[in-house]
Order: sequence, then C-alpha cells, then structure tokens
Amino acid sequence: MKIIKSVREMAAFSRDVRRRNRTIGLVPTMGYLHEGHLSLMKAARRQTDVVVVSIFVNPLQFGPHEDFRQYPRDFRRDRAMAQSVGVDVVFCPSQKDMYPDGYRTFVTVDKLTDGLCGASRPGHFKGVTTVVAKFFGIVKPDKAYFGQKDAQQAIVIKRMTENLNMGIDIRVMPIIREKDGLAMSSRNVRLSAAERRDAPILYQSLVKARRMVKGGETDPSKVIRRICFLIEGKRSARIDYVAVVDARDLSPLRSIDEAVLIAVAAYFGKTRLIDNIVIREDKRHN
Amino acid sequence: MKIIKSVREMAAFSRDVRRRNRTIGLVPTMGYLHEGHLSLMKAARRQTDVVVVSIFVNPLQFGPHEDFRQYPRDFRRDRAMAQSVGVDVVFCPSQKDMYPDGYRTFVTVDKLTDGLCGASRPGHFKGVTTVVAKFFGIVKPDKAYFGQKDAQQAIVIKRMTENLNMGIDIRVMPIIREKDGLAMSSRNVRLSAAERRDAPILYQSLVKARRMVKGGETDPSKVIRRICFLIEGKRSARIDYVAVVDARDLSPLRSIDEAVLIAVAAYFGKTRLIDNIVIREDKRHN
Repeated sequence: MKIIKSVREMAAFSRDVRRRNRTIGLVPTMGYLHEGHLSLMKAARRQTDVVVVSIFVNPLQFGPHEDFRQYPRDFRRDRAMAQSVGVDVVFCPSQKDMYPDGYRTFVTVDKLTDGLCGASRPGHFKGVTTVVAKFFGIVKPDKAYFGQKDAQQAIVIKRMTENLNMGIDIRVMPIIREKDGLAMSSRNVRLSAAERRDAPILYQSLVKARRMVKGGETDPSKVIRRICFLIEGKRSARIDYVAVVDARDLSPLRSIDEAVLIAVAAYFGKTRLIDNIVIREDKRHN
Repeated sequence: MKIIKSVREMAAFSRDVRRRNRTIGLVPTMGYLHEGHLSLMKAARRQTDVVVVSIFVNPLQFGPHEDFRQYPRDFRRDRAMAQSVGVDVVFCPSQKDMYPDGYRTFVTVDKLTDGLCGASRPGHFKGVTTVVAKFFGIVKPDKAYFGQKDAQQAIVIKRMTENLNMGIDIRVMPIIREKDGLAMSSRNVRLSAAERRDAPILYQSLVKARRMVKGGETDPSKVIRRICFLIEGKRSARIDYVAVVDARDLSPLRSIDEAVLIAVAAYFGKTRLIDNIVIREDKRHN
C-alpha cells in the first residue's frame, strides 16, 4: 500500500492509472476509521481497480466553535486498517497543500444545505462540497463512496456531482452499527460511559418511528414528537433536530406518503451524533 | 466537424477521446465568433489533438438588466468559422440540458471577483465560474483557451482551476484588435456608426497610459485621471471603471512598480465594452 502526502504526487499517480485505462475508486474520509469506512473501502475494492482512501480532517467544514482540534486522529491505526482491506493508496495531504495562500474557491449547493445539519452547522456543507470537489479534481475517480449515515451529505454530493457534470458515480453505502444499534462514528470514542449507554436511543427511536410509519402513521409531527419524547428520556441527551423529509431532496413532508428520510441529531454531553433511516414506499404497508 | 447538442453525448465523446489517450483542447464561447475566438481555436488546433468549441450564451452570467436576450447569435456563421480553422466538435447544449430543474450548485471565487467587472456586474463571475466548471466537467479538456480581453475572467478561471485541482492547463491568448485598435468583441456589432467611431478611444487611452508608465509615471491615480479624461472626450462614451491593479491578483496598487494591469470598461450608448493592457516590469524603463 502506497502512502501519498502531496497533492501533486497524488494527481500524477492518478493520471498514470487512468492512462492505463484502469478504474479508480475513492473513499474520502477524515480518518479515525471504523467498520463503516471499511465497508466503503471493501465496496470500492470489489468495484474498481485502484482504491484510494483520502484521510484529511478538513478545517473548512468545522464551525469556529466545533471540534476540529478535538476530532480524533490516529494515522498508524488508520493505515493498518486500510491495508487490511486491500486499499492501494492512502492519500493524506497537509492543510497547506489543500488550502495554500490565496485559496479563494468554494463550491456551494443551495437549498439542500439549508435544513438539518446545514441549519445547525452554518458553512459546514460549503466546506464539505469544496473539499470533495478538490478530491475529485485531484484523484479523478470513476466511483466515490460515501456512508448513508451522513444522509444529507450524500444527497448534497450527489447533486453537486450531477450539477457540475463531474461524471463520477456516487455510491452510498448502508450505515454500519454497533451491536446495540449505535451508528458507527469516529466521534463515538469521545462519549463517556454514561453517554455511550444513552446513545443507542437514536437508533431505537428511529426503529420505533419506522414501526409507526409502517403501521400507517402519515403525520410527520406525530412521528417527530414520538422520537423527541424517546430521546429526551435519556439524561445525557440534548436534541439538535428531528426531521421527517423527502428522501430524495430533503424537502419537508406534510404527509408521509413518499420515500421518507427520518433524520436525527443530538448531543450526548459535548458530542454531537447523527443517525437516520429511510423508509421506501414499497417497504411500507407490509 | 461534429455538432453535438447533448451534454450526455459530449461527455461520452470526450470519454472516448481520452480512452485513446488523445488530448482535448476546449474553447468555451458564447458564439457570434470573431477573430479573437478564432485565435483561441487555432492555438488549440496547434497544441491539442481534438479541438472542442462550446457555444452557449450562459444566462447565469447576465444580470437581470443586462443584454442576455439581445446578445448576438448566429449559429450558421459560427459553425462555418469554426470549421474554417479545423475545429473537431462544436458543442452547443440547450439551457435546459445545462441547468435542469433542481439545479443548485455554484462555484465562486472570492475577492478576485469583487472589483472591476465584478463590482459593476454582481453575480457575473459566479455565473462564469459555474458554467466553466460545468464545461470542464463535461469535456474534461487537457487545455482550455481564454482571451486576454476578459482579463479578470482569465485570472478568476485560472485561480478556480488551481484551487479545485482540476488539472487543466489554462491558456490565455492575446487580445485581437480591429485595424483602429478596437478590441474584437461580439458586442461591437451593436454599436451605432457614431459609437463605433468613438469606441477606439479605449485602446488609444490605454496606449497613452502605457507611454506614461514607461516614461516613469508610478502614480496610479494620475494614470487613471488621464484615461478618464480621454474617454470622457468622446460624446457617446460613459465610463464604467478605469482600474490600475496588480496583474496577478487584481489587488489595488499604491505605486506602479509591479506587473500592472490597466483595465477599462465603458458604455458606448447601451453597449458596454472592455479593454485592457498589461505592462510587465521588464518591459518598462526601456
């Protein structure tokens, strides 16, 4: 497995791969890898010739009061994990190489970034779309892999890729969960023991919401109220948002009769976690 | 010469060219071609294997009170001119294909777009960078050609391409002028006879400004005053801006001792024309 630290070297490597008409799969990450990331790498391994994993904690997508400095980092462990699933290249550029002096260019996706995480993290998605556009430019992958846990991010990146005609196939892979249902996240390591015990309520509340919808409930506000009630029952939890939206474009739903995304974000202590569930029409009423 | 109207077909054609490891040169235009455009196509013809000229009057880069509807169009003439210099593909997508329903993504370059044309045409450069990013995505050229007449545009696009790591070589070609010095522009056709007689003052005033600088003048305000005086002497002219800025990053200059860009914009009747001249350090004091 190759470790590439410079943008220029990564671009040259990638150009060479393309010249030989081999396909590239990119898994962009912020490191501190877990099973969720590994599932993306394994998919890339199956579906493309050369698998590139980027590791870059992107300052641009953190707000001034967010956890950029505290975001967990462990490069040795990440490297070993990437190697274990057959990754070809780990690309870990420096901040300076990604955002040199005179950096001025930003990519934005309007409207889709107004609600949910975009509302509570202003500027977050501008940072995400910009850094992803850069990785797409450097690596020029055929396919790129993202996790469904960041549901809004996946929708925003798909739209950006389509809108800017990037010609990259965006693959969104299912959420990987701990045994008790907690969605895998690099931030889980920052939970105290008590917070860790409370955190599975996110998934549990989503499962109950799904049961309501499958049972015929069509009123989003009733579903939201139920989820809030369940999460608020946990001492360490503070809700950021609970949303019931159209699964394709994140628009609000008056009535649940399309493919629906139910998404939650909550703080457990100082750690903000997110989770979601998609209920498709064809899986309802069964 | 091939005429391609659909984004999908253009992307497929381009993919096929790249697979055969042949290079692509792109000349993005809004049509109504003139000698300036042809010089870009000829450069592309010399420097790349497959020359693609896009013709698209981009609504996104026109303000609500600007001349989008009145912008001159003549596809037959454009096609013949492109063919005469050996262009391989004319790509002329529809608005609907470029900006389908649900279009949401924009590329912006901060600061460099605040002054000059950016100040008098709010949103203009956001439209330019977005459409150029799209053409770069669709065509994926090795080299792309722009005219020095749009000096700010060239600087902005270079920065975008670098910042987003697009890996495209941006070539900026010299301004092509009529015999009396008027810079070639698709908009020149809209000048009345009287306006057409007045319009060469733009270039004449720039030539005089260059003479001042070469003669040792280092005070930007004196140079600007001289240019304004000359342009205001023409009855049909109304100055939009006269700027003396750093030729690399468009920052204002207190004193002319670096490579300097002198740029002017003025209305002749309802038609807004621009022109500029770059004076490099090594060409001064001689």
